[in-house]
Amino acid sequence: MKARVFITLKKGVLDPQGKAILGALRSLGFDEVRDVRTGKLIELELEGSSRDEAEKRIEGMCERLLSNPVVEDYRIEVD
Amino acid sequence: MKARVFITLKKGVLDPQGKAILGALRSLGFDEVRDVRTGKLIELELEGSSRDEAEKRIEGMCERLLSNPVVEDYRIEVD
Repeated sequence: MKARVFITLKKGVLDPQGKAILGALRSLGFDEVRDVRTGKLIELELEGSSRDEAEKRIEGMCERLLSNPVVEDYRIEVD
Repeated sequence: MKARVFITLKKGVLDPQGKAILGALRSLGFDEVRDVRTGKLIELELEGSSRDEAEKRIEGMCERLLSNPVVEDYRIEVD
């Protein structure tokens, strides 16, 4: 089973990397870009066949290792 | 307009960060995890209203700045 975890900074948390990308895009002529926020994508390959069970387990992984719940949100997608 | 760019390592490119996460998940008891690959998520906020035009512009951003086409693939999602 394949799953994807999207980890993004919570609203209000500063994102210097995003600001740097924004500046670089603008200097390349991409003036239509208003804001850039960076995040992480984690692709998992899992044994097991129950989608619900996998989702629950991945939530555990996010809480315990993959995300920092103080400053980050996560979203899980299971195929 | 909002858009998301998903940047992933090409198949066959080593991902030491993914391997480290895999090891950490296993040591936490998540034995069902077989493989982990890491990538980047870039959220863009853009001016303009044409979805097609935005997608074309974002392709340019990926080729010129956001991704390294030698080792990375990208996928674009425009809302």
